[in-house]
Amino acid sequence: MKKNKIGTYSFVAEPFHVDFTGHLHWSVLGNHLLNCAGFHAMERGFGMAEVNQNNYTWVLSRLAIEMNEMPEQYEEFCIDTWVENVYRLFTDRNFAIYGKSDGKIYGYARSVWAMINMATRKPADLLDLHGDSLLDFIETEKPCPIEKPGRIRVGESMPVRTLGVCYNDIDLNGHVNSIRYMEHITDLYPVDWYVSHRIRRFEMVYVAESYAGDNLSFFREETVDGSHDIEVRKNTGGENPEGEVVCRSKLKFDNK
Amino acid sequence: MKKNKIGTYSFVAEPFHVDFTGHLHWSVLGNHLLNCAGFHAMERGFGMAEVNQNNYTWVLSRLAIEMNEMPEQYEEFCIDTWVENVYRLFTDRNFAIYGKSDGKIYGYARSVWAMINMATRKPADLLDLHGDSLLDFIETEKPCPIEKPGRIRVGESMPVRTLGVCYNDIDLNGHVNSIRYMEHITDLYPVDWYVSHRIRRFEMVYVAESYAGDNLSFFREETVDGSHDIEVRKNTGGENPEGEVVCRSKLKFDNK
Repeated sequence: MKKNKIGTYSFVAEPFHVDFTGHLHWSVLGNHLLNCAGFHAMERGFGMAEVNQNNYTWVLSRLAIEMNEMPEQYEEFCIDTWVENVYRLFTDRNFAIYGKSDGKIYGYARSVWAMINMATRKPADLLDLHGDSLLDFIETEKPCPIEKPGRIRVGESMPVRTLGVCYNDIDLNGHVNSIRYMEHITDLYPVDWYVSHRIRRFEMVYVAESYAGDNLSFFREETVDGSHDIEVRKNTGGENPEGEVVCRSKLKFDNK
Repeated sequence: MKKNKIGTYSFVAEPFHVDFTGHLHWSVLGNHLLNCAGFHAMERGFGMAEVNQNNYTWVLSRLAIEMNEMPEQYEEFCIDTWVENVYRLFTDRNFAIYGKSDGKIYGYARSVWAMINMATRKPADLLDLHGDSLLDFIETEKPCPIEKPGRIRVGESMPVRTLGVCYNDIDLNGHVNSIRYMEHITDLYPVDWYVSHRIRRFEMVYVAESYAGDNLSFFREETVDGSHDIEVRKNTGGENPEGEVVCRSKLKFDNK
């Protein structure tokens, strides 16, 4: 049976997955998005387990989530996911998040993935390798009316926070979980900030991995358009004062 | 239709809910247990929403989880939960965690709950208030072959870690989520520790709430029987050097 191009998965906002305002945590949503990407790809023959067998692995390069509002405690919601485009080195996967009963759109997300060879860590040619199966599933009709992730530059040189990588940060791949950075970034703001602000858009750009024993420093600056740009660098100071960029993020807040 | 005394809920160990060894995180399991408690009570008329209507709320007092092994990534498992006993001020709720397909027992858990008046914060008399419905559901046949939570004393006066309470720590009740302490406690050990050790038993005793702006200090000592006893105190130093005890924990490790 030929699978639909669009995969749909449903969720409920569990009580311990909402913040003090009763809305789903961004990191929990991020986690759900990655799970949906995994299910969708697996069900269509190009999931992590399948590509691992050929010594390749999917790597998340960018993620942009934009939410008009967040599901509240006990609300049931669905996530649609589909492949928008396949290029030589990247593929674009989109998401729509909406109410299960009323179809109300909560928001959308865009992600960009690369595939790398697990031995050489070099990018694979998606058209060569998986062109057939991937191209079969490109969905061009379904809209994803949010901007693509853009460029993020942070000039600030004083970190707002420095954290050692902990046990709970590390996933099965042995590096800090992509979504965990989102959690640490939301924790850069005091609880009071979220009384008067909500995040509208959350962008992540993943540059390098970090591991147990690494120290992560978070640099933040406000841009002219009011967004907050954040850069996470590992192991700054010492022999290499600048450290190494791990990821960058851009947050756009609404006043409540 | 009369509900069974035992509620059964099924789960899968999601890829981002396992640690670097591929086993379910203790905090994720703790979260599932509390969700099961909530579902079971709600389905039988004494859930959080129902008791809140009368200005009461359930408070978790103790939790002890003992696992022969932890589910691995993608494994499907079930959690049974039932009320073992109802006393004037406390009720005992137990859990069994087992494989969905083969019934293999992963482990058991015990929890102790009180009900308090939301206005006065004073404990309610469970037999007076909810005797009828609660007593109806006491299940005495089903075994829970692990020890009850015991006494935990920590004499150590130098903290191993101090953390400010962050946005992601706080749940809808406005205080640090019970399970979040478990996560912070597992993070007291370096990643390498978990290469050679696994947690067999995790006990939590909840004493007081902590809030945004609090500083949590973690004190740890090893006891003669080899367990690790941990005390979490808030806002030590300053006018009240001892701070205030928030919770205590006892961890028992197996060597791998």
